[in-house]
Amino acid sequence: MKVSVKELKEIFKPKVTPIIWDDKNNVLTLLDQSALPFETTYVNLKTPEEVSSAIKSMKVRGAPAIGITAAYGMVLSIISSQNFEEALSSLSKAKTILDKARPTAVNLSWATSYMLSKAKDLVDNGEARNVGELISLMKEEAKKIFDAELEAELQMGIYGLEKINDGDTVLTQCNAGGLATGTGVGTALAPVKVANALGIKVSVIAPETRPWLQGSRLTVYELMTEGIPVTLIADTAVGLVMYKNMVNSIMVGADRILSDGHVYNKIGTFKEAVIGHELGIPFYALAPVTTFDMKSRVEDVVIEERDPDEVRTVRGVPIAPEGVKVYNPVFDVTPPKYVTAIITEKGIIYPPYDKNVRKVIER
Amino acid sequence: MKVSVKELKEIFKPKVTPIIWDDKNNVLTLLDQSALPFETTYVNLKTPEEVSSAIKSMKVRGAPAIGITAAYGMVLSIISSQNFEEALSSLSKAKTILDKARPTAVNLSWATSYMLSKAKDLVDNGEARNVGELISLMKEEAKKIFDAELEAELQMGIYGLEKINDGDTVLTQCNAGGLATGTGVGTALAPVKVANALGIKVSVIAPETRPWLQGSRLTVYELMTEGIPVTLIADTAVGLVMYKNMVNSIMVGADRILSDGHVYNKIGTFKEAVIGHELGIPFYALAPVTTFDMKSRVEDVVIEERDPDEVRTVRGVPIAPEGVKVYNPVFDVTPPKYVTAIITEKGIIYPPYDKNVRKVIER
Repeated sequence: MKVSVKELKEIFKPKVTPIIWDDKNNVLTLLDQSALPFETTYVNLKTPEEVSSAIKSMKVRGAPAIGITAAYGMVLSIISSQNFEEALSSLSKAKTILDKARPTAVNLSWATSYMLSKAKDLVDNGEARNVGELISLMKEEAKKIFDAELEAELQMGIYGLEKINDGDTVLTQCNAGGLATGTGVGTALAPVKVANALGIKVSVIAPETRPWLQGSRLTVYELMTEGIPVTLIADTAVGLVMYKNMVNSIMVGADRILSDGHVYNKIGTFKEAVIGHELGIPFYALAPVTTFDMKSRVEDVVIEERDPDEVRTVRGVPIAPEGVKVYNPVFDVTPPKYVTAIITEKGIIYPPYDKNVRKVIER
Repeated sequence: MKVSVKELKEIFKPKVTPIIWDDKNNVLTLLDQSALPFETTYVNLKTPEEVSSAIKSMKVRGAPAIGITAAYGMVLSIISSQNFEEALSSLSKAKTILDKARPTAVNLSWATSYMLSKAKDLVDNGEARNVGELISLMKEEAKKIFDAELEAELQMGIYGLEKINDGDTVLTQCNAGGLATGTGVGTALAPVKVANALGIKVSVIAPETRPWLQGSRLTVYELMTEGIPVTLIADTAVGLVMYKNMVNSIMVGADRILSDGHVYNKIGTFKEAVIGHELGIPFYALAPVTTFDMKSRVEDVVIEERDPDEVRTVRGVPIAPEGVKVYNPVFDVTPPKYVTAIITEKGIIYPPYDKNVRKVIER
């Protein structure tokens, strides 16, 4: 089925809306992801300080979603500015406040830097003739960031559609959905959502994804909200569902992809890829081209470890003897041998990755 | 290192004691496994009714442990019998009460049947000349069941020792330890415990094993109590620890093994076996010869599914949206191709299993 991003934007309105900008009242509304899936509540934010504290308290999560949120946090800082000087000073202050919310989030500081330098350009080159015009143009810039993300995901979804047949079941891992990206579409889940919007039957198996349970909490919530059939399994059942032919393909997101095709993603991804490889089930990593790290080699990448208590407890309830030694890596790495293809907004990349990655992302 | 079961029984006194028989006061003491690892409490049982309710409430779990417990439950029924008639009638009643505690537990009904028919034999053939002698001889029978289990596990441990080098780390799954068997030794953990008793350095990586968390709750408790180094991981981290060369071998128990080498064990076992196979890490299933099912084929075996709420919650706390569809299989099946060897109390079985299983278990 052939469909364009433009056509798709008309047909498909995501039911999960993590980031809503009210252009009339200048209010940023976030779906409070820290309360999901037990409560669906929204918070209304009117200042960069409020946005910063929402990012800090994980009401919004996922790199792209944080970037979009921060861009609107910058907009909020100039809503009541009286002149250019005041506006540029407010934007500088807002950037400082927002960047501190998650110092390691690259998308956050990218978005605040972009918005600040954009404002300077608009003033310097005379495109904004007064502060009112500056505010309008800055709102447009934030919307462009959101739209670019949305369109990239829909494009990924369209490319991914090639890998989905009517009646398929897709195994995923973690939440590489529209909650993480802020658009309601997502990366790994984009093909599934696009298929569903086009009337192609597709269902998802979501492993709970310990220790953070993004699968059981977020992916299940997101797919149930969208009306896409989803089955929750314990992480231990990943092998059996493949062995029993309950899975047609594996689709996951990626946190970083090396130029030779090594895929870094949420812990647990590697086991799905290896079992898929062994049983002949294709494994696809879906990510925008910004995910590629063209410089690092696999030896260079350190896998982050987190607080052992994340493994010792579940939602604050202990599940192991106190003081037990824990190994709690956040990511694992899947070697290119197990990766059937990498699906980006610029096209599908097949092995050999060391040759083909560059060809596609430099398009 | 060469060691016999007899020598080992002198050297190695397990520190975990799930089943204790007080021969002077006729009291059966069970470590309350339903409270582990958060509380270490013991319950004292004096009647078959009390034993039955302890089995029902999962204070004791694991097939061999339930068998031993039931045998002592039978003994408790005749402690105050005044004559043979009364004793045999008490044993019949006790069997009915105990069998109902876990109707599907084969070891339970085997143990009660064995104890009842043994009592009849002892009376019929005149070995027990009075009811006092009958009680003594029946106590000996229960102890024989315990000792046979203990010796089989130590023998498995001795065979498994061939597969352990000083400094090794063993990856396991679930709890195939001395808590499940009642002896404090176990099946999958027997080689590790025997090695440790002989001064060979060995450590264990225990995956939490969702949904029941036997890994985090029981295996970790058991190994910490025994003083064997153990590291807890989330089930998702199983692949990365193998990829990072943190594991020298995989040792798991088995619930059923077919004559062609298919191994049924706790959900999650299959993924360890496949990844081990792919990365060259040997995978061993450890089980007594009674675990072999020589009649069934893989097509015949139905994999039991349990309550979806086990996946939707952890220790009563919800982790997913209410009403989400769940697939909750208890076991998975590992094809012979991924099984490096099967270690029994009669020896180590190597492929081809369709030929070699019979040779070893009929020894």
